[in-house]
Amino acid sequence: MHKVIFDTDPGVDDALALYYLHRHPEVDLLAITTVFGNAPVSLTTRNALFLKQEWHIPAPVAKGAAGPLGRGGTEHWPVHIHGHDGLGNIGVPEAVGAPDPRPAHRLIIDLVRAHPGEVTLVAVARMTNLALALREAPEIAGLVKQVILMGGAFAVPGNVTPAAEANIFGDAQAADEVFGAPWPVLAIGLDVTRRVEMTRAEIEALGAESPDLALLRDLSLDYVGFYETLGHRGMVVHDCCACVALTDPGLFATRAARVRVLSGGIGTGMTVAAPQDMTFPPSDWDNAALQSYAEGIDPEAVLDRIRRVITA
Amino acid sequence: MHKVIFDTDPGVDDALALYYLHRHPEVDLLAITTVFGNAPVSLTTRNALFLKQEWHIPAPVAKGAAGPLGRGGTEHWPVHIHGHDGLGNIGVPEAVGAPDPRPAHRLIIDLVRAHPGEVTLVAVARMTNLALALREAPEIAGLVKQVILMGGAFAVPGNVTPAAEANIFGDAQAADEVFGAPWPVLAIGLDVTRRVEMTRAEIEALGAESPDLALLRDLSLDYVGFYETLGHRGMVVHDCCACVALTDPGLFATRAARVRVLSGGIGTGMTVAAPQDMTFPPSDWDNAALQSYAEGIDPEAVLDRIRRVITA
Repeated sequence: MHKVIFDTDPGVDDALALYYLHRHPEVDLLAITTVFGNAPVSLTTRNALFLKQEWHIPAPVAKGAAGPLGRGGTEHWPVHIHGHDGLGNIGVPEAVGAPDPRPAHRLIIDLVRAHPGEVTLVAVARMTNLALALREAPEIAGLVKQVILMGGAFAVPGNVTPAAEANIFGDAQAADEVFGAPWPVLAIGLDVTRRVEMTRAEIEALGAESPDLALLRDLSLDYVGFYETLGHRGMVVHDCCACVALTDPGLFATRAARVRVLSGGIGTGMTVAAPQDMTFPPSDWDNAALQSYAEGIDPEAVLDRIRRVITA
Repeated sequence: MHKVIFDTDPGVDDALALYYLHRHPEVDLLAITTVFGNAPVSLTTRNALFLKQEWHIPAPVAKGAAGPLGRGGTEHWPVHIHGHDGLGNIGVPEAVGAPDPRPAHRLIIDLVRAHPGEVTLVAVARMTNLALALREAPEIAGLVKQVILMGGAFAVPGNVTPAAEANIFGDAQAADEVFGAPWPVLAIGLDVTRRVEMTRAEIEALGAESPDLALLRDLSLDYVGFYETLGHRGMVVHDCCACVALTDPGLFATRAARVRVLSGGIGTGMTVAAPQDMTFPPSDWDNAALQSYAEGIDPEAVLDRIRRVITA
């Protein structure tokens, strides 16, 4: 069994990823921690509580960071992608239960300490909660089994800028601290996630299978439309790729590298890798921990795995 | 015929590129302009004059910039790659003729104005001279036929840092101005040049063919050794790839993109492309001219073309 803490900002593709983790027979979902990103943290937390209620997920929800570590300023919420409510404008009710009293990073610390060497952090949003946990309790880096994050763009352009992918751009400082720390990080970035597209027809068909999947369909349709306007064949299931990388790592090709995240200037949020299989002069990468990132994926097999798990 | 100004910092692979241009029957080499980079500009100018003398090249040599536009500080000359004399420690004589009285960027302006629409700038070093020419006479952007530069790393790591290739890193500001200007730029970067390797055995064999090639062999051997230590099969002929892209563009696959060069911080000198075939939100790339960069190459065909031209 994989003991998992899911750090998320639901978020449409977050919802699919959450449902995948909830339904996977080899995943023990310990907690859902929320953060700003696809919407303000007040909404992503409400959305997580709503999905927990609708899908009968036993894991607690803890509310996390409202903004980035590394810079101030107003976040422009991507309402054209995830809707004004963060869940595809389905009209999420306000009263949907209460979160855990602890802030997200404290719950992460507590659970990692309670299960030393056993917890995988699947982080599919801004890395702020993870960085806060590291700052408060650096020793957890040695107690976490693995960090699998959806984020970055290594040999491909970004999405929010030509340089940067949204989860990293949204808190570049936090991401640099997460990549630099001595815990094993696997980054599932746009290099691979952009290739995993679930068509509108398939989502419609899935929605007819159960009330759970009807909800998933309803909250996904606007998001599908956004990706169709970009020329994709359907919705890009970014976040769920990180979950499949947990359960089926063989569907990904990875490369070992030290990774730094750029801050300041037009390159802010860019993930720059120094692959272990190449030689460089001494550089600012040398003190970062050796991590890995995905450079290859089997998109059809990943989609097939998602289908099987969520319809089982 | 291709009318060419060759902007260079000889430099070992510069020497091969220069000999290729000199010997190619469809190239009319109008001028050689020098710049700091592989060695101080005093040495790269002396080396250009030396090669002009030894190889009986009629084109004038003009001395260019001694340092970058964008930042101060000491340049660390890559003596472990190009030798203490910039030409593989062969012992270049000091007195080898005089350069053109004009600074390099002025000669570029004069020649472009004299041959409107006809001149290709093949630039294989820091882009400082080109940026100075643009600053002094912005209208030349509309008079140059094409700029083909060896520089950048688009979907691959850099060489002087994990982010940056040496020619761009050495004057990131100048490179950003060159990519941004409204003249057609084709960048031949590490994505393709790293794949073009000339083995030690081949260089030895070429050296036996003529006195000209014996000189090329002698100045190349230390450089071959450097690349062998990096795990390459031989010398990487970076600069000559830009020359072959001029004469045989069909051997390259290119992608249209707006390109910005990062300045400041650990990403300095990184070339970041916004490909035309992708959609991005409004960004700092939007006002840069649409250029192109090479993402594919036929290495064996390029090597074959180089062999044929320099041994003809």
